[in-house]
Amino acid sequence: MRILILGGDGYLGWPSSMHFANKGHEVWSVDNYLRRDIASETDSDPLFPNPKLPERAKIFEAACGKKINVVEGDCADFEFMSELFEKVQPEAVIHYAEQPSAPYSMRGFDEASLTLDNNLKATFNVIWAIMKYAPDCHLIKLGTMGEYGTPNIDIEEGWLDVEHKGRKQKFLYPRQAGSLYHTTKVLDTDLLWFYVRTHELRVTDLMQGPVYGFITPEAEMDDRLKPNFHYDDIFGTLINRFLVQAVSGTPLTVYGKGGQTRGYLDIRDTLQCVELALKNPVEKGEMRILNQFVEQFSVNEMADRVKTVGDHMGLNVEVKSIPNPRKEAEDHYYNAANTGFKELGLKPHILTDDVLAEMLGQVADYKGQIDKDKIMPRVSWNKVA
Amino acid sequence: MRILILGGDGYLGWPSSMHFANKGHEVWSVDNYLRRDIASETDSDPLFPNPKLPERAKIFEAACGKKINVVEGDCADFEFMSELFEKVQPEAVIHYAEQPSAPYSMRGFDEASLTLDNNLKATFNVIWAIMKYAPDCHLIKLGTMGEYGTPNIDIEEGWLDVEHKGRKQKFLYPRQAGSLYHTTKVLDTDLLWFYVRTHELRVTDLMQGPVYGFITPEAEMDDRLKPNFHYDDIFGTLINRFLVQAVSGTPLTVYGKGGQTRGYLDIRDTLQCVELALKNPVEKGEMRILNQFVEQFSVNEMADRVKTVGDHMGLNVEVKSIPNPRKEAEDHYYNAANTGFKELGLKPHILTDDVLAEMLGQVADYKGQIDKDKIMPRVSWNKVA
Repeated sequence: MRILILGGDGYLGWPSSMHFANKGHEVWSVDNYLRRDIASETDSDPLFPNPKLPERAKIFEAACGKKINVVEGDCADFEFMSELFEKVQPEAVIHYAEQPSAPYSMRGFDEASLTLDNNLKATFNVIWAIMKYAPDCHLIKLGTMGEYGTPNIDIEEGWLDVEHKGRKQKFLYPRQAGSLYHTTKVLDTDLLWFYVRTHELRVTDLMQGPVYGFITPEAEMDDRLKPNFHYDDIFGTLINRFLVQAVSGTPLTVYGKGGQTRGYLDIRDTLQCVELALKNPVEKGEMRILNQFVEQFSVNEMADRVKTVGDHMGLNVEVKSIPNPRKEAEDHYYNAANTGFKELGLKPHILTDDVLAEMLGQVADYKGQIDKDKIMPRVSWNKVA
Repeated sequence: MRILILGGDGYLGWPSSMHFANKGHEVWSVDNYLRRDIASETDSDPLFPNPKLPERAKIFEAACGKKINVVEGDCADFEFMSELFEKVQPEAVIHYAEQPSAPYSMRGFDEASLTLDNNLKATFNVIWAIMKYAPDCHLIKLGTMGEYGTPNIDIEEGWLDVEHKGRKQKFLYPRQAGSLYHTTKVLDTDLLWFYVRTHELRVTDLMQGPVYGFITPEAEMDDRLKPNFHYDDIFGTLINRFLVQAVSGTPLTVYGKGGQTRGYLDIRDTLQCVELALKNPVEKGEMRILNQFVEQFSVNEMADRVKTVGDHMGLNVEVKSIPNPRKEAEDHYYNAANTGFKELGLKPHILTDDVLAEMLGQVADYKGQIDKDKIMPRVSWNKVA
C-alpha cells in the first residue's frame, strides 16, 4: 500500500515509517522538523541525538534493504501539500504532523498561537488535499485521549448515546481538554467530522493515551534508528520522565495529589494499533473513533511501580509531590472504554515489572547524558506571557 | 461603559454601535471591511449602499450629537489588537468580527481557508488581548444557533446534563454544524470554554438564530444610517431574501422540502439581547451561553406567511421549491430552549403580519435596485473547488 506519513520524524512518526516500510509498504515520510526546532529553542533536546530523516532513511535501508521515501516540507503549507498528494497519490495517510506539547502550548501567546495555527492548518490541509487529489484515501489521524478530559461518567469510544426527555440522539462524545494543545485536537475532530459528513471522507480518529518506551523491532537494528526519547517537561510523557528520574537519582515528581488517571500504552502497541486501523479501513462518509490505550494508571500508582522496580534494581528511588503547574483534577473518576482495538485483534503489551526493568536498563545506558535541569516544570498553566 | 465593538461595520455591528452610543456609552467601533471586500468579489453587494465607518459615524453624530469612535483595522492581527486593547481598556467587548457567510465558506479551498483562519484568529486574539490588557472585561461573543445543528432531542441552552450508566456530568451541549462557517463558531466556543476554565475569563456566548429586518430607531434618523441589507445567496438571511423576492416578483425559493426549522429574531431584538447581556455581566471564570431567538418557523411556514401578506398587498407572490444546494435535513425534529433572555427581561418583537407588511413596504422603496441575479444559490455544498 502507498502510505503517506505526516510528521514522520516524530516520536511515533519515525517508528511508524520504519514499521510500515519493513512490512513491504511504499512509505513516504514527511516532516519539517518543527518539534526539533522547538526542542532546541526551549532547551528540551532528547536523551540521545537522532539523525534527520534523509540520514535515518539511509541507515534504515543499509540495515534491512527497505526504502523510506523522505520529503522535507511543511504540512501547514497547502501548496506543498497539494504537490505532495498529487505526486504520491496515497492510499492511506497517517497524520501525526502537529505540535505535540501541552506545556509548550501553555507557555505564552506566541507558543499558543503557533500551536493553534500549525495544528489546525495541518489538519485542514490534509482534509483538502485528500478531497482534491486522493478522495478514496483512508485518513488515520492521531488524536488524544486528552480530548475527553476527565468527565464524571464513563468515557465511551468517540460517541455518546444520549437519551433526553424521552428522545434519543447519538453525539460526538462531548470533549473538554486540559491544555491548548489538547484543545487543538478537539478542534481537529470537529473539523474532520464536519467534512466527513459533507464530503464523504474516510477517517479513523485515534484517541491515544500517553505512550511509553523507545524500543521497536526496527530500532533494535541500529542504535541510530531509535525514536527521539524526550524526558523534559515540554515533550516528555509521564512514564518516560519517571524512568529518567529513577535512573538519574532524582525524585519522581508527582504533580499535586497524583490521583490523575490516564490510559497508557507501549510504543509497540501504537504501531500495532495504527496497522490494525490501516488493515481495516472505513467506508466513505464514515468516521471511526478508537480509544488507543491499554492500561489505566494514576500518577501515584505509576510512581509506586517505578519505585518498586527501581529499588529492586538498587536505584533507591524517591517520590516527591510538587505543586501542580497544570490546571487539572488531581483526584477524579476515570473509566474509559477501549474495546474497539481488541475487537480488531490487538494483542496488547502489558506494563509488567519485567518491562519496566528492561526500560530502566535501556535508559541507564544513557545515564551520563541526562540533563536534570530539563525535568522540572518550567511552564505554569495560568500565567499570561 | 467603555464598549469595544469588533466587526462594527456589519449588519449587526453598525446598529449595535449606534444603539450603545445613543444610550450614552463610550463606543469604539472596529472593522477592516472584510465582508465588504467579499461582497464585492462575489457580486453580492447589498440592496442599497452604506457609507464606511468614519462617514457613518459623522452622519450619526450630526443626527443626534453622539460620538462613535472608529478604528479601521484587522482583528486577526494580534499587534493591532494589542495596541487597541491597551489604548481603549474596554470594560466590555462585543465580538462580531467574523466572516459570516455559510455559502462563502463552502465555495472552495481559498474561501474555506480564509473563513477558518480569520474567524479562529479573531477569537483567539480577543481572548489573548483580554487576558493581557483587560482581564476584567466582559466578552460578549456572537455565536450561532447553527452550532447545534438539528439533533433529534431538544436543544438546551448551551449545556446538557447527561446521565449515563448511573453517573452524571454536565457537558457543553454537543455541537454539529451544517457549514464550515458554522463549524468555526463551534471551534470558537471550544476555545472560549477552554480559556474560561484556565484563565478565568468572563464570557457570554450568544447562540443567535437568523435575523430579519433593517430598521432600528437610530437608522430611522437618516437613511444613510441603515445597516447593510443583503438578500443575495452569500450573505442574505432567509426572511430578508424572501422579502426581496416577494417585492421583485420572483418566486420565493424554498431549498428542497422546506421543512428546515430554525429560531428567528428581529434585528431590534438582537440589540435588546446584547444590551441585556451587557447589563447582566457574568463572574470571572464563568461562561454563560444564551440562545438568542424569538420564534421557530420552518422554511415552508415562512414562505406561506410572506406569500399571504404579500398577496394581500397585491404582490402576487409565488413559492417554488428548488434543489437544495446545502447538505442538511429537510424534515427534522427541532425544539430549542430560549428561556435565558426571557428571564433577563427580553420583550420580544413578534413577527406579525403587520411587521411583515411593514418590512415588505420598506424593501419596496428599493425595488428598482434589486438585482435578481444575486438571489439564486451559486454555491453547492459538496463540490470541491
